[in-house]
Amino acid sequence: MLIKNVSILHSGQLLPGRDILIEEGKITKVGRDLKDESDDEPIDGRGKLAIPGLINGHTHLAMTLLRGYADDMELMPWLQEKIWPLEAKLTEEDVRWGVKLGCLELIRFGITCYSDMYYFPDTTAQATKEMGLRAFLSGVVFDMKPELLGQVEPFIRRWKGDELITPAVGPHAAYTCSEETLLREKEIADRHDAMIHIHLSETREEVDGFLLSKGKSPVEYLDSLGMLNERLAAVHCVWLSPEDCYLLAERKANVVDCTVSNLKLTSGIAPLNTLMEADVNVCLGTDGASSNNNLNLFEEMKVTAIVQKNAYHTPAAFSAEQVWRLATQNAWRAFRLNLGLHAGALADLVLIDLQKPWFCPQSNIISHLVYSMSGGVDTTIINGKVLMREGVILGEAEIMEKAQERFLRLTS
Amino acid sequence: MLIKNVSILHSGQLLPGRDILIEEGKITKVGRDLKDESDDEPIDGRGKLAIPGLINGHTHLAMTLLRGYADDMELMPWLQEKIWPLEAKLTEEDVRWGVKLGCLELIRFGITCYSDMYYFPDTTAQATKEMGLRAFLSGVVFDMKPELLGQVEPFIRRWKGDELITPAVGPHAAYTCSEETLLREKEIADRHDAMIHIHLSETREEVDGFLLSKGKSPVEYLDSLGMLNERLAAVHCVWLSPEDCYLLAERKANVVDCTVSNLKLTSGIAPLNTLMEADVNVCLGTDGASSNNNLNLFEEMKVTAIVQKNAYHTPAAFSAEQVWRLATQNAWRAFRLNLGLHAGALADLVLIDLQKPWFCPQSNIISHLVYSMSGGVDTTIINGKVLMREGVILGEAEIMEKAQERFLRLTS
Repeated sequence: MLIKNVSILHSGQLLPGRDILIEEGKITKVGRDLKDESDDEPIDGRGKLAIPGLINGHTHLAMTLLRGYADDMELMPWLQEKIWPLEAKLTEEDVRWGVKLGCLELIRFGITCYSDMYYFPDTTAQATKEMGLRAFLSGVVFDMKPELLGQVEPFIRRWKGDELITPAVGPHAAYTCSEETLLREKEIADRHDAMIHIHLSETREEVDGFLLSKGKSPVEYLDSLGMLNERLAAVHCVWLSPEDCYLLAERKANVVDCTVSNLKLTSGIAPLNTLMEADVNVCLGTDGASSNNNLNLFEEMKVTAIVQKNAYHTPAAFSAEQVWRLATQNAWRAFRLNLGLHAGALADLVLIDLQKPWFCPQSNIISHLVYSMSGGVDTTIINGKVLMREGVILGEAEIMEKAQERFLRLTS
Repeated sequence: MLIKNVSILHSGQLLPGRDILIEEGKITKVGRDLKDESDDEPIDGRGKLAIPGLINGHTHLAMTLLRGYADDMELMPWLQEKIWPLEAKLTEEDVRWGVKLGCLELIRFGITCYSDMYYFPDTTAQATKEMGLRAFLSGVVFDMKPELLGQVEPFIRRWKGDELITPAVGPHAAYTCSEETLLREKEIADRHDAMIHIHLSETREEVDGFLLSKGKSPVEYLDSLGMLNERLAAVHCVWLSPEDCYLLAERKANVVDCTVSNLKLTSGIAPLNTLMEADVNVCLGTDGASSNNNLNLFEEMKVTAIVQKNAYHTPAAFSAEQVWRLATQNAWRAFRLNLGLHAGALADLVLIDLQKPWFCPQSNIISHLVYSMSGGVDTTIINGKVLMREGVILGEAEIMEKAQERFLRLTS
């Protein structure tokens, strides 16, 4: 497959007239006047910008089905009266259509890979493959449902080596899993060189609880179990001490920031500048659609930048270039994916229509992508396959219809 | 003109299958099976939601030309090294194309009316009329450029009574205008029953300065000049005492909140819950594209809600319904416009395509408009004229080309 005459970014500048050759799921050449051996009709890239596909570092994708079902409530009534009773009724079919609905949205936002923690990970994996996305998937584990732990390793064995799905380990949090459960999860992750995906230091209550009961912060506690390493994706990390930040840096753990969800649930604002000064690898996620309520990583970039500026009292903090790096290079590093517009990279890429007023004037494209982007993802390609072309995703209407049916069944 | 089979909102619920009849710039009927006397082909509303057009309560629309030109800088170097030198070179032609570019964006975001303060208000008015939008326009006035004050009343006389343009008075701020200038502006506004559009209590420095030099807050100072009334649009109001809030309420002054711009420039977070408890009429604006960097009021709604929740430490603060009210009813009240989907209202309305994944499942539509909306404005109608239909605005490419030319000239 050949993309002709597209613009690419180089050191923040727009380079027009480039061709991108894709063969067998990989980018094999980027340059001028390239030829394609295949019979595929080339994709016309004129007026468009090619960027590597984005990674959404934290989702509960099936919860897209619960979007707008319960907002603006205190955390405990929200969980106890709304989310948990509904989740208790969730079937595989619900998860299948919730995941497919979420995939539609990811494709429309230029997200080619997501990292998920939820129930029914096999169904999630199957639905994701059918949709053609790349994903890091983990079945959620906590002690209230002891049967979940036993399903972790079989799930990993079933999906290990898959082209699109990378299985991972998903202990829900240090306060919902016993030490024994956490150590068991760590052992499985070590054995399979798998990532651990965990909610960490999300609320002040969580951190205060650990300090009182164990004399350690949740970060220090996980470190005492040997769980901080470069395969850890620690999500939220809102309430960190400077010592926690340096410990995460020393252990090369990854932090996934979810600013929008943290604001909406009033968990607080993560100390991202401190984390980045400590040289922690920070990337971005949206969290589930029931607490965001979309999966839009461009919105996440903007809100993260402006909220961090305000928190650190200087507009010079958190530049557009810096937040763009979190969403791209830092995410590639966290998930160990060879992404980028260069030969050898995975053919996960996105074309954005620059002929939109929010990209005009074409002054600083990275600033526009971070601060003014309000749509315009035109084409999404994953693993060399076109999932959306000129804004059209085949089968979209049917998926939305099915999702609506499942939602009505769940809430009836 | 007839819109057939569209959905409308009633008490937060979706009512499908409604027709909306538009005659001579007004909505004349909303109901079922309506007939149109005109020969116009009806607009098919199936799968779409009609909402009243939104009002962007604070812009510097010509500054859309400066989008992305200078970001992530401290306030004074940003103004002194970047914005002011460029503004010194601004011509009427620059303003014309900056405004038209801004109008494109407003139309795409479902904004049918905006309230502006900037240089060359006649050019802004002319360009806005050519584009077909409704606007409240004021020429900016401050003492550093004494010639501006003399232009205020002639501008008002020229545009008073226009169908689309309502002239207003725009003293930049209490700290950039002398008491004499402010009183002169007030006198003009009173004589013409015009609105006063002013930046107020935006930064902590501004408020501290007033308290030190006058022993009054900026709000109290304006009140001592008799400027607080229902024709005042006080923009920003980030640093208010509870007394300021009650004073604004007592005088029935309107507050225009610009959360995104306030965060990006690190001015702080306005005490909206306190303002609303005091029963102040608060509405929303984006500020100029050089400090936002777009004009998207849907984004403004979401960021406002989640930032206020976090600031007041409860997810129950600032519900979707509440922020939707700021963007609709409160704005109609501030600008004294008869809007809404009812007979007699101005035919300023917007059709939104509900067949987008971020509106699925169709659980709580107001929640979706506030928290998950990421595009889908399909048709924008102002004063009974269709400015965008199915996402197409005639002449859009030429305006973007001209804006790009003007930007290159300005920065060369």
